[in-house]
Amino acid sequence: MKASEKRQHEYYMRIVLSLARRGTGRTSPNPRVGCVVVKDDKIVGMGFHRCPGSPHAEVMALSMAKDMSRGATLYVNLEPCIHYGRTPPCAPLIVERGIKRVFISTEDPFPKVRGRGVEYLRTHGVEVVSGVLSDEARWLNRGFLKVFEDGRPWITLKAAMSLDGDVALSDGSSRWITGPSSLKRSHLLRAEADAVLVGIGTILKDDPELTVRYVDGEHPLKIILDTHLRIPINAKVFKEGDVLVVTSKDSSPQKVEEIISRGAGVMQIPTDSRGFLDIKEMVYKLPSMDVHYLLVEGGPNVLSSFFDAKLFDEMALFYAPKIMGRGKGAFSGLSLMSMSEIPIGRIRGMKKLDDDLFLEVDM
Amino acid sequence: MKASEKRQHEYYMRIVLSLARRGTGRTSPNPRVGCVVVKDDKIVGMGFHRCPGSPHAEVMALSMAKDMSRGATLYVNLEPCIHYGRTPPCAPLIVERGIKRVFISTEDPFPKVRGRGVEYLRTHGVEVVSGVLSDEARWLNRGFLKVFEDGRPWITLKAAMSLDGDVALSDGSSRWITGPSSLKRSHLLRAEADAVLVGIGTILKDDPELTVRYVDGEHPLKIILDTHLRIPINAKVFKEGDVLVVTSKDSSPQKVEEIISRGAGVMQIPTDSRGFLDIKEMVYKLPSMDVHYLLVEGGPNVLSSFFDAKLFDEMALFYAPKIMGRGKGAFSGLSLMSMSEIPIGRIRGMKKLDDDLFLEVDM
Repeated sequence: MKASEKRQHEYYMRIVLSLARRGTGRTSPNPRVGCVVVKDDKIVGMGFHRCPGSPHAEVMALSMAKDMSRGATLYVNLEPCIHYGRTPPCAPLIVERGIKRVFISTEDPFPKVRGRGVEYLRTHGVEVVSGVLSDEARWLNRGFLKVFEDGRPWITLKAAMSLDGDVALSDGSSRWITGPSSLKRSHLLRAEADAVLVGIGTILKDDPELTVRYVDGEHPLKIILDTHLRIPINAKVFKEGDVLVVTSKDSSPQKVEEIISRGAGVMQIPTDSRGFLDIKEMVYKLPSMDVHYLLVEGGPNVLSSFFDAKLFDEMALFYAPKIMGRGKGAFSGLSLMSMSEIPIGRIRGMKKLDDDLFLEVDM
Repeated sequence: MKASEKRQHEYYMRIVLSLARRGTGRTSPNPRVGCVVVKDDKIVGMGFHRCPGSPHAEVMALSMAKDMSRGATLYVNLEPCIHYGRTPPCAPLIVERGIKRVFISTEDPFPKVRGRGVEYLRTHGVEVVSGVLSDEARWLNRGFLKVFEDGRPWITLKAAMSLDGDVALSDGSSRWITGPSSLKRSHLLRAEADAVLVGIGTILKDDPELTVRYVDGEHPLKIILDTHLRIPINAKVFKEGDVLVVTSKDSSPQKVEEIISRGAGVMQIPTDSRGFLDIKEMVYKLPSMDVHYLLVEGGPNVLSSFFDAKLFDEMALFYAPKIMGRGKGAFSGLSLMSMSEIPIGRIRGMKKLDDDLFLEVDM
């Protein structure tokens, strides 16, 4: 492929990815998919997958293109499906609508599809080119891919702290460490996640709602780690949206009933020798609940246990321009032994949010 | 002044400031000064002050301009002097060389000059415009101005830590937290300072040289806070450059003699009720030793005592993309009591240095 041609295909694929991104926070367990149909260098159809049960991106784009799809080129970030799910398969539709060439970013990892969508298209006379902006496309569907590759959601650890890494003073006081833009950004992280998780300590101390309020978006599933079921039945977290309380197998059946009667779910899992919940067991159950993106919001003990269990893919760190000294560290529950055990990340993004600093760190 | 004219004057003053900046780390106790002479929209002379005893910027620029100075315009970031110091005064020379107009950023705060340089020029028929890029000019000479306004040097607190604010693990292990570009940058901070300060803990643990090695520049005065004179007589810090050991009045006269015989200076100051050195007393003595810019390199106890004494103007913070958990915090010696007492800064600059993050924070 000539460089100028490659650039052109990447140009359209970037549009596809930005369309796909519009499904962020709403498509799980499905992937984020966008599609454009191009005829004579003009976009004649575009679409993206909105949420489970709604049309696939290809269907939307082809329906917009109408007769213009004959002899046209179709761009889509994920291999078109050929299996019947909640909607009819896309590959046969592409053939039927006379598409001549299809550009794809990545193969669908789903066992019922993997490579067979491409095969179907090719045997029906459609030219297929794979791998256009595949890194970007894989990144966009990192949770969807993580579930297929590792059986667990993509995990983001979030913390808001002072420049010297404290989330609270030693007496526990901490409210409003970071400013309004950081708050908005952290709500965006919630809107992009399928579930948000905190420990019972955070519930008892701050009584948060854990909803999406300062940006548009849907409330994530709210997961509370609560070994001994200490959660108050009138906690704000029950007010709106779905709640899952994760507790030990020994928890009082009566309290479990009480929580279920509040409309929340309860997951009972084993505890380890220290009496801590086996978060690994919980994390691997989440994909079956359509959770592909998990945002862990803390506090320090919860963040540290995800760290200790090596259950994390990236960190979202908010820093207020303050120095707190000998307070409570964001990861102070961590039990590291030597410099060589220290996890090393890569700072992917840095941004000023009003007076604060926001870091995105790949781990 | 018309906007286009203003832009033109700022253009030349920016050149002046970049010339002045070349004196960074070498001019104290003198200020950083640059100068250009402009005739018919051409620069015919330029200069900057290199170090005490060398010609002033105006003298250098006028000497380069030669006869072209007649009727020319002169730009200088600090009011020209009229007093005899180590070199003859500049204002009379400017008049003598036929300069028609002088643009100045800021008045000289030095009592023997303040306003009188401008006055001299005006009474001798030279047009003077003050205040061009005065904020930038004040920033460039922040240490020089700090000494005149507050009687102490400009103080930069430097720390290198993990993303969660630790300088070491709980067992003290810490070497090479940050990478090579951060090291280079921290040597640049040393080169720009007149003095660098560490506590005896750092000397005993790391035995640093505290010299400028990875960038060009002069070694700063090396100040060691050492209450009980525990510094080993063969510490690397004595190898090269000037050293000042600050200790209590009770320290053994014999050990004091020993250190002086090593070619180092000793300053004996009172201790407070907790037995800690009264760093305030020391800090206010530094201007008399030509220290206008002090870089405090740590460790945590020393950084915290400068914080507690409110003796700091900015912070230079290096972050490695690591999480260290429950280690030794960069400011863990700090005794803050409530959220309202927490100092709030402003992030002035942020920069990736290889894999690390470098923050400059105004306090």
